[in-house]
Amino acid sequence: MPSDVLDRIRDYVRDELLDHQDQLDSIAEMPLARQVRLHQLGLANWWLPKDAGGSGLTLEDSVDVVSELSYGDAGTAFTQFISILGTTMVSLYGSQALQDRYLSAMAATGGFCATLGSEKEAGSNLAEITTTVRRAGGHLVLDGLKYFSTNTAFAQFLVVIARSADVPDEHLAVVVPADTPGIRILKRWEMQGLRSSGTYEVALDNCRVPADHALVGPGLRLLEVALNASRILIATTAVGVSRRIRDLCMDYAEEKSLYGGVLADHPVFAGKLGQIEMRIEVMLNQCKAAAREFDALVEGPAAAETLVRRGTLRSALAAKMYCGQAGWENATVGSEVFGGFGYTRESLIGKLVRDIRYVSIVEGGDDVLRELLYNRYVVPVPKRL
Amino acid sequence: MPSDVLDRIRDYVRDELLDHQDQLDSIAEMPLARQVRLHQLGLANWWLPKDAGGSGLTLEDSVDVVSELSYGDAGTAFTQFISILGTTMVSLYGSQALQDRYLSAMAATGGFCATLGSEKEAGSNLAEITTTVRRAGGHLVLDGLKYFSTNTAFAQFLVVIARSADVPDEHLAVVVPADTPGIRILKRWEMQGLRSSGTYEVALDNCRVPADHALVGPGLRLLEVALNASRILIATTAVGVSRRIRDLCMDYAEEKSLYGGVLADHPVFAGKLGQIEMRIEVMLNQCKAAAREFDALVEGPAAAETLVRRGTLRSALAAKMYCGQAGWENATVGSEVFGGFGYTRESLIGKLVRDIRYVSIVEGGDDVLRELLYNRYVVPVPKRL
Amino acid sequence: MPSDVLDRIRDYVRDELLDHQDQLDSIAEMPLARQVRLHQLGLANWWLPKDAGGSGLTLEDSVDVVSELSYGDAGTAFTQFISILGTTMVSLYGSQALQDRYLSAMAATGGFCATLGSEKEAGSNLAEITTTVRRAGGHLVLDGLKYFSTNTAFAQFLVVIARSADVPDEHLAVVVPADTPGIRILKRWEMQGLRSSGTYEVALDNCRVPADHALVGPGLRLLEVALNASRILIATTAVGVSRRIRDLCMDYAEEKSLYGGVLADHPVFAGKLGQIEMRIEVMLNQCKAAAREFDALVEGPAAAETLVRRGTLRSALAAKMYCGQAGWENATVGSEVFGGFGYTRESLIGKLVRDIRYVSIVEGGDDVLRELLYNRYVVPVPKRL
Amino acid sequence: MPSDVLDRIRDYVRDELLDHQDQLDSIAEMPLARQVRLHQLGLANWWLPKDAGGSGLTLEDSVDVVSELSYGDAGTAFTQFISILGTTMVSLYGSQALQDRYLSAMAATGGFCATLGSEKEAGSNLAEITTTVRRAGGHLVLDGLKYFSTNTAFAQFLVVIARSADVPDEHLAVVVPADTPGIRILKRWEMQGLRSSGTYEVALDNCRVPADHALVGPGLRLLEVALNASRILIATTAVGVSRRIRDLCMDYAEEKSLYGGVLADHPVFAGKLGQIEMRIEVMLNQCKAAAREFDALVEGPAAAETLVRRGTLRSALAAKMYCGQAGWENATVGSEVFGGFGYTRESLIGKLVRDIRYVSIVEGGDDVLRELLYNRYVVPVPKRL
Repeated sequence: MPSDVLDRIRDYVRDELLDHQDQLDSIAEMPLARQVRLHQLGLANWWLPKDAGGSGLTLEDSVDVVSELSYGDAGTAFTQFISILGTTMVSLYGSQALQDRYLSAMAATGGFCATLGSEKEAGSNLAEITTTVRRAGGHLVLDGLKYFSTNTAFAQFLVVIARSADVPDEHLAVVVPADTPGIRILKRWEMQGLRSSGTYEVALDNCRVPADHALVGPGLRLLEVALNASRILIATTAVGVSRRIRDLCMDYAEEKSLYGGVLADHPVFAGKLGQIEMRIEVMLNQCKAAAREFDALVEGPAAAETLVRRGTLRSALAAKMYCGQAGWENATVGSEVFGGFGYTRESLIGKLVRDIRYVSIVEGGDDVLRELLYNRYVVPVPKRL
Repeated sequence: MPSDVLDRIRDYVRDELLDHQDQLDSIAEMPLARQVRLHQLGLANWWLPKDAGGSGLTLEDSVDVVSELSYGDAGTAFTQFISILGTTMVSLYGSQALQDRYLSAMAATGGFCATLGSEKEAGSNLAEITTTVRRAGGHLVLDGLKYFSTNTAFAQFLVVIARSADVPDEHLAVVVPADTPGIRILKRWEMQGLRSSGTYEVALDNCRVPADHALVGPGLRLLEVALNASRILIATTAVGVSRRIRDLCMDYAEEKSLYGGVLADHPVFAGKLGQIEMRIEVMLNQCKAAAREFDALVEGPAAAETLVRRGTLRSALAAKMYCGQAGWENATVGSEVFGGFGYTRESLIGKLVRDIRYVSIVEGGDDVLRELLYNRYVVPVPKRL
Repeated sequence: MPSDVLDRIRDYVRDELLDHQDQLDSIAEMPLARQVRLHQLGLANWWLPKDAGGSGLTLEDSVDVVSELSYGDAGTAFTQFISILGTTMVSLYGSQALQDRYLSAMAATGGFCATLGSEKEAGSNLAEITTTVRRAGGHLVLDGLKYFSTNTAFAQFLVVIARSADVPDEHLAVVVPADTPGIRILKRWEMQGLRSSGTYEVALDNCRVPADHALVGPGLRLLEVALNASRILIATTAVGVSRRIRDLCMDYAEEKSLYGGVLADHPVFAGKLGQIEMRIEVMLNQCKAAAREFDALVEGPAAAETLVRRGTLRSALAAKMYCGQAGWENATVGSEVFGGFGYTRESLIGKLVRDIRYVSIVEGGDDVLRELLYNRYVVPVPKRL
Repeated sequence: MPSDVLDRIRDYVRDELLDHQDQLDSIAEMPLARQVRLHQLGLANWWLPKDAGGSGLTLEDSVDVVSELSYGDAGTAFTQFISILGTTMVSLYGSQALQDRYLSAMAATGGFCATLGSEKEAGSNLAEITTTVRRAGGHLVLDGLKYFSTNTAFAQFLVVIARSADVPDEHLAVVVPADTPGIRILKRWEMQGLRSSGTYEVALDNCRVPADHALVGPGLRLLEVALNASRILIATTAVGVSRRIRDLCMDYAEEKSLYGGVLADHPVFAGKLGQIEMRIEVMLNQCKAAAREFDALVEGPAAAETLVRRGTLRSALAAKMYCGQAGWENATVGSEVFGGFGYTRESLIGKLVRDIRYVSIVEGGDDVLRELLYNRYVVPVPKRL
C-alpha cells in the first residue's frame, strides 16, 4: 500500500466525517457527496485490480483503510466497501469483457456495485431464494424480489443471485447494468444505525441482460467466496467503531472530575479501557489474519477454482463473529461510561452503539455462522484447527 | 390491590400504547394526553396514600403495575411512576400541611412531581452538588442548575435537593411549587430511548418558598430513602420491556419459516427464549422482594426514622443492578432474533433495546451502585448476607 | 422455624465443617460421622413432617438452613438434604403405612433416602429409562442399572423410578428398603468436587418389594414434583458457597497489601465484590420465592393432585439455572482474586470452584432446563409471566 | 521450522501424553522422564539459538509447538517452555561467556532454567521485591525468599531478579548456577491443575556468584522483555487445551444418543462447538501475531536496546488476557457437555478445566494486565491502535 494512503484516509475522516455525525446519523438523504469526495481524492474503490484502473490494494490493506474510515463513520465505510462483494465475483468469475466494462467504469468514476443475494424468506438459507433467471435466446431474464440490498439505488451495476428456471438446483450470479429496465426500488429501509448507508427493497421484473453476463460457476458458491471479503471488512468496521468508542471515553474521562481527580485516573475506568484495548488488538489481528488468508488464495495458483472449492473460510467467519461480539461488548461498556449524558442524543455514544450492532446481523447472524463453522470445520476432523 | 387494577392497566396498555409505538418513540412532543387518560381511568399515581385521596397501593403492587405499563411503553411508565421519588419524601418527611396541600392535589388531578437531585458535576457523588438553599426571613431561597430532572416542565411541584448556604455539610430537600418564580426550563433533552418521557435541564434563580417547605431530615439521606422506591420501579421497567421482547420474538418465530418448519421449533431459539424467561422470573422476584422489604419498613414502627437509619437498601440496589444487566442481555439476544429486519425501524426491537438501556444508567450507574453495595453491605461483616 | 435453628446450624458449621476442609475435600471415605453429629444435634432431616416425628420445616426455611450448611461444605449439605427428593414423593404420594414406616424411621434415626432416577442413556430424557418393574403376585420386581444415585450405599430406603414391564408407557416410583436382596453398589464415583458426598452406580437385580410400595401416580410426574424441592436446595448451595467465596475474598483482601494500602480498599476489588453481593442477594431471593411457591402448593387444597398437574415449576427451574450460572460467575471472579496462591491446594478457593460447578450439572443441565422452560412456560401463551 | 517438527511433536503427544492423563494429573512426583524423552527425541528447548547448539525456532514456530504439546498436557508443555523466560534474558542481555556456558549446556543436555521474579508480597508490583543482591569483591551475593518459582528444583541455572543493596531503585537480573550453595527448596506447591509441573517456594541464603553473572540492563525491564515470550506461550497453552476440549466434546457427542440421533447432530451442541472453534481460531491468530511482533523485534536492528525501550508489548498482554478469558469460556461450556459424567474424575474434562485456569493467573492476573495495557497503550495517545 502506498505509504500515504492511510494518512490521506485519516485526513478525509477528519475533514469530512468527524464533525458531521448528526448528518451522518440522519436518514434524510444519502450523503453521497461525501462518497464523491472520496473518489475525487483518489481513494474510492481502492481494492479494484490495477488492470481495471484501480489501486489494487490487498484485502489486508483494506482492513487498515476500513478501520480508519469506520472510525469516522461506519455507514460511510460500509457504503464504500460493500461493492467488494460484487466486484470480487466479477474479478474472479467474470469474463474479461465483463471486467473491462464494469470494473473499469467503477474505477474511473468512483461508482458502486450492489449485490442482491438474500430474500425475505431466504435469509439464513440462501438455497431457498425464489428470484429466477431463465434463458431467452441470447439473453437471461430475471424476476424476483430482493428484500435487503445495499447501494442498489445508485449502483452502476448489480450482481444478482438467482435460481435457474431451467436447471433444477442451479443458481447463477448475473451482472445486471443499473439501467436495465425492470429494476424497481420499492423503498429505502430506515435503519436503527448505519444511517448514512442505503439499503433497499428491490423488485426485478423481467430484467433482460445478455447471456454472457452470467458469471462462471455455481452462483451460491461464488457468493460464498466473495462473502469472505465483505464479511472481513464488516468485521473491521467493529474495529474502527471500537477505536472511536475508546477515544470518546478517554476524551470524556480526562475532563470528568471524580473524587478530586478525573475519571481517567480511576482504576475501575482504567480496567474497562484496558479490556477494550485488548479486544481492539485481538479484533484487528483476526481481521488481518483472515484477510491475509484470502489474499494468499487470490494470489495463489488457480485462485478461482481453489476459492470455489474452499468456499467460506473459517477465518472470515471467525472475524465476523468475534468482532461483532467483542464490538458489542465494547459498545455496552462504552455506553455506561458517560452517565445520563451518554443516553442523550448530544453524546455520540448512542450512534456508535446503534452502528456497531449491524456487524452481528448482516451477512449472516451468529447462529447461522456458528452452524456453518461447525459443519464445515469441526465435524470434518481433518479441517479442525 | 383491588383485583381489577391489573386488568384495567392491561386494557389501557392495549388501547393506548401497543399500537402507538411510533409516536411514543418520537421526541416531537410529550404524549401527555396518554397520561391524562390514565388519570381519567383512575389509574394515575396509584401509590399515593389513601389519606391524600390516593389508592394507597403498596410498592409490591406497584411492581405489577409498572411491569404491565412498561410492557406497553417504558417511557410512559417512567413518566408516571417517577413522581414516587418526590412523593415518598413528602409522605415520610413532610409536615401534614405539605402532604395535604401537595399530595392531595396530585391525587385529585393526576399531576406530577419532579425531583431535582444530581447535577452536571455531581452525578455519582451527590455530596458535591452546588445548588444552594439559604434562609431569608421566613423563606428559603434556592439557586442552582440541575442537569437532568424528569417531569419538571409539567410537574405540580418539585422536590429540590440543595446544599445549605448557612450550615456547612448540611443538605435540605425542599418542596417548590411549580409556579414559583425563578424556575426556568433550559431545554428538554433529546434521548436515545424512553422518548415519550421528558427530562430537562433546569435553572433555579432566586426561587423563594416558605420555610416550612423544607422536609425534616438530612436531605441527601431522605433522597436515599426515596431512591429505594424509584430504583425498584426503574428495575421493574426492565421486566416489562423484557416480557415485550419475549413476546415479540415469539410472534416472529411462530411465523418465520426455517428448514421446513418455523423458527419457534428450532432448539437454538428455544434455548434462547428459555434463558430469557428464566431471567424474567428472577428479575421479577428480585423486584418484588425488594418492594416487600421497603413496604415492611414503611408500614413498620417509626418508619421515617428507621428508613433514615437504613438509607439505601441492598435489595433495591440489587434490583436495579440485576434488572439492568439481565434486561440488557435479553435485549442483546432479542435484537439478533429478527435478522436484518430487526435492524430496521419497522421492527419494534430497536426501540426496546434503546429503552431498556436506561435502567443501568439513571439513578446511579452500576459502578456507583457496586461501590455502594460494597461499602455498605460487604465491608461491615454483620451486614453481609 | 424455631428461632434458634439457624444459630445451631451455624454452630455446627463452625465446629464440624469450617476447619476440616481438607478432609471434606478428600474422597477417601464418606465423612458420615459428621452427618451423625447433625442428627445428634437434632438438626438432621429438618423437613420431615411433624406427623412422622420430624421438625416439619418448610422449604423456605430449608433455604436458610441449606445456605448455612453449604457455607460450611456443599457436599455435607447435599448429602443431608438430597433425601428430600425421595421423602417428598413418599409424603405426597405414599400410603399412610409407607409414611409411617419409612419417614418415621428416618426422622428417628437420622437416616437417608436415595432416589434412583436417571440412567446412563437416560439423562436428559427420563422417558428412555430401561430399569423395569413388573408385578409378580403381591410383589413388584425391579431390574436395571442406575448410573448416578446419591446416598444409596447408606440410605435406609430407595425410591426407584422404573418403566412398567406390564403397561406400555407407564412408569412407577417404588419404595425399596435398603436391605432388599439384589441391590448392588457397583462403585462409588470419584467426583471433581462435592467430595464429601457419595454418588454410586447401582445395579438392581430381581429386587422384590410388596406391591403396596409403589407410590400412587405416574412415576415420572411424581419425580418432577419432587425435583422442585431438590432443585431449589441444590440452587441454594450456590448461595452458601458464594457467601463463603465472598468472605474468603474479604479475609484475604483485608490482609493483602497493595499500593501502600490493602486490596480491600482498591476500587476494582470493591466493584467485583459489590457485583458478587448483588448476585448473592438475587440468588437468595429467587430460591426463597421458588420455595414459597412450592410450600404454598404443598399446604394448599388437594396438594398432591395440584402438584401432579403443575409438575415442574418455572420458579424452581429458574432457581437452579440462575444460581448455577451466577454461582459460577462468582467462582470465576473469586478464583482470580488470590493470585498464584489461589491456584494452590493451600487456598480454599479451588475446592469452592469445584464444588459449585455441580449446581449447573446435576438434576438437569441448563440446556435441558431451558428447553423445559420454553416448552412449558413460553410456548403456551397463558403461562408466560 | 523443519517440516517434520510438528509431526514429531504430535507423535510424542500421542505416545507419551494422551494415554497417561491420570499420572500427569497426579502430584506425586514430577514426570521428568517424559521431559527426558522429549530431549532424546531432539525436541527439547527448541527455541535456543543455533549458536548455542539449539534449533533456533522462532517464537511463532513455538506457538505451533506449544499448541500441540499442551493438547497433550498443559503441565508438560509449561515445564518445557517456561525456561524461555530465563533464556531470553540470557540470550539478549548476557555476556557471550554466559551464553556459551549456560545456554549451550541446556541445549546439550535438555536441561531447564528457572526464573525467580515475584515474591509473596510483590506479585502485581515487582518493584516491591525484597530479595537483595549486593556486591562483595568480585562477587554478587543474593538473599531473599521467592514464593513461586517453576522448575527450580531441577533447573541447571536460575535467573534471579533482585533489588540492589548498593544502588537505590536499581534491580538486577542475575544468573545463578543450580549448585550454588544457599539455594534451598522450601516446598513444592500442590496445585489445582497443571499438576505435572513443579513450582516451588525457594530461599536464597547468601548465594554467591561471580560479578559477571549479572545481566546487562535494568533487571525489572529485562524481565518485562522476556515475559513477552513466556506470556505468549502461556496464552498458547489455552489454545492447545481448548482444542483438546473440542475434540473431547466431539468424541462424546458422536456416541451420545439423544432424541433418536446423537448429540453431535443437535443444533444447540453445534452452536456451542461453532463458538468454541471461533474462539480457537481467534486465540491462535492473536498468539501468532504477538509472536511475530516479538520475533521481528528480536531479529531487528539493535534488538536488545529496542526491546528494553519497548518493554511489555501490547500484543503479548492481549494474547494472555484474551486466551485466558476465551479458554475459560471454552472450559465452562465444555464442562457442561458431559452431564454428570463430566463431573467425575473418569472424565478428562475436569483436568482440562483445572489446567486452563492457570492462564489467567500466572505472570500477571487480568486486573494487573488491564492496568498495564491502559497506562502503557491507552493513556499515551500516539500508542493507541
